[in-house]
Amino acid sequence: MQAAFWVTVGLLCLTTAGLGNAQKPQPCRSPPLFMGGLTVGTQNEKVWAVGRYAYDAVQQRIHLGEMGTYNNKSFTYNALMLFDEGVLYEINHKEQTCVKKPLQSDFHPMAVPKGATFISQVVLGTSSAPGQGLLVNNWWGDMPDKQGNYILTFSEFGCFPVSALAKTKEFGWMSVSYYDNVLGAEPHWFIPPPFCADAELVESEDGKVTDFFSVFH
Amino acid sequence: MQAAFWVTVGLLCLTTAGLGNAQKPQPCRSPPLFMGGLTVGTQNEKVWAVGRYAYDAVQQRIHLGEMGTYNNKSFTYNALMLFDEGVLYEINHKEQTCVKKPLQSDFHPMAVPKGATFISQVVLGTSSAPGQGLLVNNWWGDMPDKQGNYILTFSEFGCFPVSALAKTKEFGWMSVSYYDNVLGAEPHWFIPPPFCADAELVESEDGKVTDFFSVFH
Repeated sequence: MQAAFWVTVGLLCLTTAGLGNAQKPQPCRSPPLFMGGLTVGTQNEKVWAVGRYAYDAVQQRIHLGEMGTYNNKSFTYNALMLFDEGVLYEINHKEQTCVKKPLQSDFHPMAVPKGATFISQVVLGTSSAPGQGLLVNNWWGDMPDKQGNYILTFSEFGCFPVSALAKTKEFGWMSVSYYDNVLGAEPHWFIPPPFCADAELVESEDGKVTDFFSVFH
Repeated sequence: MQAAFWVTVGLLCLTTAGLGNAQKPQPCRSPPLFMGGLTVGTQNEKVWAVGRYAYDAVQQRIHLGEMGTYNNKSFTYNALMLFDEGVLYEINHKEQTCVKKPLQSDFHPMAVPKGATFISQVVLGTSSAPGQGLLVNNWWGDMPDKQGNYILTFSEFGCFPVSALAKTKEFGWMSVSYYDNVLGAEPHWFIPPPFCADAELVESEDGKVTDFFSVFH
């Protein structure tokens, strides 16, 4: 009887140890196709913005539209990044103008970065009632240029971005909140508007893109 | 036939207009008894803290324990606020010491403050799959002392606090994230520890409490 008890305890420990490993949150990758909204703010108050984006990791393209203030001046920015073609369109719908730039950055899928360290798993809202909480994982790491750190929050189920905090040289801490993610994206978001057809390629200074996804790289 | 069509459209408009009003998020009050965790950070980097709290709106008491840094010095703080009795206990479990102070503040239940303005309703995570999103409402308003503003986020279902941003004179923007809320709280969190029994009431300078719930008042 006692032997049976200890075998049971032993098996329980084995099982829970196994569970413990299996349940430690693993780095994840966001769905290949989705759209969402974001708000951006910086510690030094240089930037404040709200925007919407459409993300396609299959055909490697991102459309980002945002408006806000930069150094107390309001701005709007609308860019279609076609990483496959190596082209970035800066689109001004109001003026019907388009600037076509080379895009030399590689496409980086939205995901918990390699080398990120797991911090914690928490529930936003509550786990006391079904449908009243969102299980999220927090990750920490060094920025690619090593000049700062990031803290990223992804949902456990679905692996959608929830928030990003990144220490940057220019802005101090930059905070991005993600919301209203929906699976899928209408293809038209990734087609340059007609008035972009005549745009000639403008050589930019470095051809690199700084976008709000760069913290996920 | 055409008449029937327009009547249908008219009824549809009436219905949706009705729905529109009914579905505009209403200010809500958090459940009377719950526990949770929080993290606090300030724009000027003076304060960084993590903590846990137990909240009882029925018997008007709050227990808050936190640790962090203040002006680059680490601190721990553990306070039991009994608003009914008008007493605040500052508890040091390690040293087994207790400071008993008068608590002249009124108890303010955790809720969307009166006079707050609705900003937006968004989903954290996604609404594309069940259980992968958290519906939240954002509210904006003036701080009670009118020297700053706040932006509060509460979950639509359950009315739990999700985040608070408050502009303060001392810290600039103060950011509080709430998580791991569970309904209910063990009564022992609200009973002063035995070594508090001998604590004599110490007159504080103003008897007012500054806690991280003050932004909800």
